Order: sequence, then C-alpha cells, then structure tokens
Amino acid sequence: MSPRADADVTDLVARARAGEARAVARLISLVEDESPLLREVMTELAPYAGRAHVVGITGAPGVGKSTSTSALVAELRRAGRRVGVLAVDPSSPFSGGALLGDRVRMGEHALDPGVFIRSMAARGHLGGLAWTTPQALRVLDAAGCDVILVETVGVGQSEVEVAALADTTLVLLAPGMGDGIQAAKAGILEIGDLYVVNKADRDGADQVRRDLRSMLALGDRPEGAWRPPIVKTVASSGTGVDEVVAEIDRHRAWLSDSGELERRRTRRAREEIEAIALTTLRRRWDDDRGRADVGRLAAEVVAGTSDPYAAADELLGTVPD
Amino acid sequence: MSPRADADVTDLVARARAGEARAVARLISLVEDESPLLREVMTELAPYAGRAHVVGITGAPGVGKSTSTSALVAELRRAGRRVGVLAVDPSSPFSGGALLGDRVRMGEHALDPGVFIRSMAARGHLGGLAWTTPQALRVLDAAGCDVILVETVGVGQSEVEVAALADTTLVLLAPGMGDGIQAAKAGILEIGDLYVVNKADRDGADQVRRDLRSMLALGDRPEGAWRPPIVKTVASSGTGVDEVVAEIDRHRAWLSDSGELERRRTRRAREEIEAIALTTLRRRWDDDRGRADVGRLAAEVVAGTSDPYAAADELLGTVPD
Repeated sequence: MSPRADADVTDLVARARAGEARAVARLISLVEDESPLLREVMTELAPYAGRAHVVGITGAPGVGKSTSTSALVAELRRAGRRVGVLAVDPSSPFSGGALLGDRVRMGEHALDPGVFIRSMAARGHLGGLAWTTPQALRVLDAAGCDVILVETVGVGQSEVEVAALADTTLVLLAPGMGDGIQAAKAGILEIGDLYVVNKADRDGADQVRRDLRSMLALGDRPEGAWRPPIVKTVASSGTGVDEVVAEIDRHRAWLSDSGELERRRTRRAREEIEAIALTTLRRRWDDDRGRADVGRLAAEVVAGTSDPYAAADELLGTVPD
Repeated sequence: MSPRADADVTDLVARARAGEARAVARLISLVEDESPLLREVMTELAPYAGRAHVVGITGAPGVGKSTSTSALVAELRRAGRRVGVLAVDPSSPFSGGALLGDRVRMGEHALDPGVFIRSMAARGHLGGLAWTTPQALRVLDAAGCDVILVETVGVGQSEVEVAALADTTLVLLAPGMGDGIQAAKAGILEIGDLYVVNKADRDGADQVRRDLRSMLALGDRPEGAWRPPIVKTVASSGTGVDEVVAEIDRHRAWLSDSGELERRRTRRAREEIEAIALTTLRRRWDDDRGRADVGRLAAEVVAGTSDPYAAADELLGTVPD
C-alpha cells in the first residue's frame, strides 16, 4: 500500500472512532467493495473491536422486522446506548451505500448521531455474508456502538448464517402468518436465543406463544443452559420492546458468565480467518504469476505426467512465497 | 496409507483397466465417499487418462434425456466403441452405487461388458460436481471408455456445471415444452456445442428448430469458430441418433484441430487442482493440530491482539508443513 493509502486509512479509522458517520460509511464501503485496503483497516481496528453486542434479527417476511428493528433502536437510544444497524440483503446484486434508502427506512433515527444505519449487499465476489458482514461489524464495533442490530432484508436461507454471526439471535414471529409456527421452519428452534411474538394485539398471538413454548420444551436442555424466553410485542406502538431489550441484556450476561460469549466469538473468528485465507489463495492463484503456475500444473495433469492431487500439493507448497 | 491399501489400489486400478466392471464401480465409490485412498488412485490412473471423449447431456425435464442417452449408447456400441455413462444427480443426498436403479434405467445395456453405467450423487461434503465428477470421469477414462456420456438427473442449475466438465455439450430440446425454446433459459445458447430437437415426430419440432436457428444466428461467430449444428431425433425409435454421433465426432475433430480441446481440458484441470487444494486446506485446518492452530489464531483475533488478515497470513504460512 502506498504511504498515501496508509495515511488515508489511519485518518479514516481515527475519524470513525470519533463517531464521524461519513468515515464509518466509507469504511463499510471499503468492506463492500472488497477493497485491498481492508487488510490495513482491519489491522488498525483490531485493538478497538470486541465491545459491541451483536444482535441478529431474523424472521419471515411480514412479521415486522423493520418496525421491530426501529423500535429496538428507539428503546436502546432512550437508555443512552450507541446503536449500529446493519441491514444485510444477501439476495441483492446492488452494492450498498444506499444512503437514501437507509434514511427512508429508519426515518426517525437518520439524523441521530448516536445511530449508525447501513444497508449492505452481502453477495460480493468473495462469498457472501461470511466474508463481508464480520468486517462491517468490526467497523461499527470500533466506532463505539454498544449494540449492533443485524437484520436480513429479503427472503432467503440466510437466517442460519445471521445467527452464526450474532451474539444473540432474536427470532420474530407473528400471528396470522399461514400456519403460524408451523410455517416457520423447524430450523428457527435451533437458532433463537430469544423469541418475539410481534403484532401481539392481533388474534392468535397467544396461540403462537403456546405453540412455540411447547415446541421449545420438547428439546430438553441441560442444567445451566440458556432457556430462550418468549416476549410479546406490538412494535408499531413500542409495547413490550423494553422487555425485549431486558432479555437481550440478560442473555448477554449469561453469555459472559457461562463462557459461551468467548466460545461463540472464537468460532466466528475462526470462520472469518479461514474465509480470508481461502480468498487470499484464490486471488493469488488468479494473478499473473499464479495463473502461470496453475496453468503449468494443469498442463501436466492433462498430459498425464502429474495427477490433480500431486499438482494441488505443489500448488500449496508454493503458497507462502 | 498402509501397504495393504497400496496393494488394494494397485490391484483395483489394474482390474479396472482390464475392464472389470466391479473394479470400476468400486473406484467410483471411493470418489463418491471422498475416500483418503483417492490420492493414490489418481496417481495410478494419471498415465492412462485423457483418451475418452466426454459428452455432457443437458436439457429440461421431459425432453427425453434418459431415452436419448440410452439411444446414444446403442449407436456407439454398434460402432464397437466402449461407453461410460455417468448419471449425476446434484440434488440427491443419497450416495450412489444405485446399482439396481442403474440397471433398471439402462436395461438393455446393463449386461453389455462394453458399457459402464453409474449413477452418482454429486452433493458430497467437499463441494459438488466440480470435485467428484472429474475424478469419476478419470476412472471411466482409464478403464478404456472411448466416449463418456454425462447426464444430469433431477432439476437444477447444474447445466452450466456439466458443460464445464464436458468436451462436447449436447443440449436437448423438445416441442411442446411450454414456450418451447423461450422456456429454455437463454443460458443454453452459450453452452451448447450441439443441439438436438428430440421427439421430432411431434407437432412443433420444426418450429423449435427454426427458433433455435435464429437465436443461434444472433450471436455472430468469428472465422474458424464452431457453429453448433441442430439435429432432429426421435430417440425412442433411434431416428437421427446416428447423425448425433456423427456431429459429436465432427466436434471432437474440430476441438483437436483448433487447439480448443487442449484449452478446455487445461481449464478443467486447473479448476480441479484448485478445488483439491482448497479441500486439502480445509481438511488440514480441521484435524487435531489444525484446529489447535486456528483456535489459537482465533483467540488472538477475539482478544484484539491480532486481526483476521494477519491471522490468515499466519495460517497460510503454516500451510506446507
């Protein structure tokens, strides 16, 4: 990297740490663009990360994810906490920086300097959520967010991926969604640390809660394990949202005390390191010299003078050059 | 590997090369099971691979893929050629060796010693078609097949993947499939080396051919480029199948003469080598020592004393041990 780029990154990180929204946005754009500067950014951010509590918000379309996210932001702000919101759309091919969209979505919070809101298309070249989201989280974390809400936008099988990135996973349900809980895939029973039955002023909310409770009770949990609570809310009026925040905090305390926070974060860091290592290799094999090396090995395999395993070994042997 | 395993592999390869169907089936099972013996198998097979012509057969459900494959086998056998059939089901979670199913599907050829028929579930742990299919092809190739037909079973986005593995890609169409060609994704116009309008005794076959011809003409091709022919068949009665074989042979000759065969095979070998290298790394990171190494790096990242890029570099630096 040039000295100029160095200076830029150091400056950007300093401004992001000071809470300057434009600097935070710029750093997240670097993540989204898979910039070569990311390596330096992450080095500079490393000492400042690890404070924020990451809450994944997931649920079927129509349960009120956006409204719930907005209500949670309001409740957290009331307590004076700095909040990051990362709306991830794994299905969108459009790169983010959707600033206008962000402001529209989160109208009331858009001008609050204690809130960072960012939409992000997660479908980069380098492999989606697992690669980009942790780095965006690290930016928001270092920028001083106490809590980061990660919400998936759009439809997809990404619930489980979001859960893998969060300290606390909040699963939203609502009455009247087809078969209610039955409609929600059985998978959500594995990932939820906290269940929220939204639109609780509608018919059927109690039934959803009863169904959910009996389904959660089916899986016996060992002594000391976390038992996911079920909270009813009406996000549009804010009812019950204080209780959701209280349960998030209770879960955070349990995570710390039980050692599970450390375990989850270490597992996430492991996945992130491996994803970056694989990406680094793919890039190396794709530069001029790499293409020549792999091309020579491929020609040997085609000629029958080598086999793909021996060639792969040779490729890996040349890795640390 | 133990001396015993060595002896087994050498013996298996020798028997497969002698055309023993059970030995061929056993080697393909090793591929499917992602056996650690594969490394040896591929080393032993290397000098004998590269002779077979690989023909990918793709098309929407209902166009008569199985019937066409069977008719092609009959035609190729009439000319005394040894034929391999690999039916790949990328959507199936069931591991292959579906011997009974294979026999039922290809009833008339099941007892012909000049035909190897094998179904394979391609959805292994290590990443689908790109990993398993080339190795299965290498087995059939070394076993002396002159032509290998690769047919995808089931529905999916795998047409393009199959095309990437084949020397010649045959795209099957049929009249009366909804909007005919319009229903076929535009993508098939990119991948076909040869188009077959099957069920040509039905109304609309000529229209399908006309539509296809005008769509193919839209893309101007440079001088010396291959112009995909369109052949009409009635696979159930064998009509036109001799012409399909003739066009496959003509394409094969063009591939050789133009240097494209070498280019395609080198590109495939490159992808296979990279897939094996990445798989080797993932496995290494997942064994006891690897888990300890990655775990230590992950803990440093969580503690903020390292960042994921530096950790990834260190992980790659320890690769060639």
